[in-house]
Amino acid sequence: MSEIFNFSAGPAVLPKEVLRQARDEMLDWHGSGMSVMEMSHRGKEFMTIAEKTESDLRELLGIPSNYKVLFLQGGASSQFSMVPMNLLRGKKTADYINTGQWSTKAIEEANRYCTVNVAATAADADFTYVPAQQTWHLNPHAGYVHYTSNETIGGVEFHWIPQISQDNDIPLVVDMSSDILSRPMDVTHFGLIYAGAQKNLGPAGLTLVIIREDLLGKPLTETPTLYNYQIHAQNDSMYNTPPTYAIYITGLVLAWLKQQGGLAEIEKINITKANLLYDFLDDTDFYHCPVVKSDRSRMNVPFTLKNPALDDDFLRQAQANGLMQLKGHRSVGGMRASIYNAMPVEGVAKLAAFMKEFANQHA
Amino acid sequence: MSEIFNFSAGPAVLPKEVLRQARDEMLDWHGSGMSVMEMSHRGKEFMTIAEKTESDLRELLGIPSNYKVLFLQGGASSQFSMVPMNLLRGKKTADYINTGQWSTKAIEEANRYCTVNVAATAADADFTYVPAQQTWHLNPHAGYVHYTSNETIGGVEFHWIPQISQDNDIPLVVDMSSDILSRPMDVTHFGLIYAGAQKNLGPAGLTLVIIREDLLGKPLTETPTLYNYQIHAQNDSMYNTPPTYAIYITGLVLAWLKQQGGLAEIEKINITKANLLYDFLDDTDFYHCPVVKSDRSRMNVPFTLKNPALDDDFLRQAQANGLMQLKGHRSVGGMRASIYNAMPVEGVAKLAAFMKEFANQHA
Repeated sequence: MSEIFNFSAGPAVLPKEVLRQARDEMLDWHGSGMSVMEMSHRGKEFMTIAEKTESDLRELLGIPSNYKVLFLQGGASSQFSMVPMNLLRGKKTADYINTGQWSTKAIEEANRYCTVNVAATAADADFTYVPAQQTWHLNPHAGYVHYTSNETIGGVEFHWIPQISQDNDIPLVVDMSSDILSRPMDVTHFGLIYAGAQKNLGPAGLTLVIIREDLLGKPLTETPTLYNYQIHAQNDSMYNTPPTYAIYITGLVLAWLKQQGGLAEIEKINITKANLLYDFLDDTDFYHCPVVKSDRSRMNVPFTLKNPALDDDFLRQAQANGLMQLKGHRSVGGMRASIYNAMPVEGVAKLAAFMKEFANQHA
Repeated sequence: MSEIFNFSAGPAVLPKEVLRQARDEMLDWHGSGMSVMEMSHRGKEFMTIAEKTESDLRELLGIPSNYKVLFLQGGASSQFSMVPMNLLRGKKTADYINTGQWSTKAIEEANRYCTVNVAATAADADFTYVPAQQTWHLNPHAGYVHYTSNETIGGVEFHWIPQISQDNDIPLVVDMSSDILSRPMDVTHFGLIYAGAQKNLGPAGLTLVIIREDLLGKPLTETPTLYNYQIHAQNDSMYNTPPTYAIYITGLVLAWLKQQGGLAEIEKINITKANLLYDFLDDTDFYHCPVVKSDRSRMNVPFTLKNPALDDDFLRQAQANGLMQLKGHRSVGGMRASIYNAMPVEGVAKLAAFMKEFANQHA
């Protein structure tokens, strides 16, 4: 193969260093004679891996000791049920902010367990912006406030953390699947953070949950045992066999992030990469980005060609140039470049250069 | 490292050929320039992998077309809830056969959703046998009959398939986590088969479900969307992102099984391996296997030393000889040798020779 750049929205590109290490250790982890896939999750070898993964995550995000870190399965979609099943705590309603398709899915599922108050929505402008907090209609009786910090499909991102009055003990809950670890972030603002791993963390099949301890232990009666956060917290995520290999790869990704200088450094690189694309998109009439400037995602850059008849040609030529998986989500069309932590600046520069060249060819 | 043999009960040993292929393809699957971990689950590359995995499984097990194959997450423990939530279909009770710790866990969870009728139990003899079917007290109003075909901890295995009258439309449900694919098996006897992957299928994080189509679509109201089999069936296990890498490794294991000659051939090898250990255990007073002869597991061989003061010494010397993870489950003590499909005959022979030598030393 020749080198390619993979702009998939998830499962997504991983650091080459991580894949090389996983390859080298595949048949024999640290002289154990075993692949990580073959290790008992309760053996000392895997315990070492799991503990290092958690401590590196705690260090990178500055997670305080009154928060539990859970390594679960099921994807962010499983959290759409687990959040209401665990966090309503006797309340009958929850606040949701609707900024796009993932928010909408979370709302649909929560509606099965409570009355959802959509405190704000960007549906009026086809989800191309984040509603300012002064426009939100929060309910003082809500069990929690839920938002999606980055809409992977729409390319809309919160560049601020909502401020929720703590008078009513209403925790802030965030689906951070596609922008977790892309910047420093103060965990203490949140009651619960969740993220599917397959964008910025590691392989599909692992779901990260960071939860404030006081929120544990009040699930709805019908909650399946494995949907009860407290069960996992009490068992250090080993109530049943965890997705061990996905945890291992995530651990390698976290070690790589630390080598890059941590989240402050990775944020600088992410800003550089996003600006490379957005500055060019604003400078041309050939392409168009629908999202308002202040709310554009640093992780997922959606854009359209003014002439959609050229879409197929664009994708074909991009692929011939080693620029892969740029097709937009099937529900919105157009293009989308996902540029998570593991996408090198070089890949984004090559994409921008290709887009310019393609525009010139067809001007 | 020197070569070791890994007797872990799960996650467990994988075929060396599988690990070598995974290593060689880690950075570039079939010239795609991508690791399988980096592929969009909806892209043509991963679709090829998923389809081949399912068709190889269908071929190996002879799965008829009126059965759906689902690749889920959550482990067998998630099935302990999903089964009652989906299969009660208006009934208020279900039959369970209790043959040990995993049956007991399944019963505890089912009790949260219905009245469990324990139709038979081996608790009277510390779960060292399988109750004969003529002793079962099945309930004609049950939603289903559930059993555990192999108790991983106790080492008790069904060497026969229960025969359930079809007069009352009561499907037979089996937890086959630790003996699936160890022998040929007629799927048509079952309404639902489930298995965590981390014993005989592949890595932890993947859960296999094989379900007869007519059983889909009648979940309890409160069932989380991802606990609804029909949602997964309708979306070819891609309602949300599946555990892609675990599916890929499982696919490699299935291809390896086909190369071994399929399930009839692997069963012969499994019988050879099990006999190697059980024949020796029956021939000595130094060790003891508590399970009645007719119900001994071919997959998990539990045994104790007559003198438990020698346990630590046994484990230390075994490890020094490259015989790893032989310690029994923390709840039962003693030793356990798990000898799944991927354990070579050579490994079992080496274990038997070591056990003999150790016994001679300490006679």
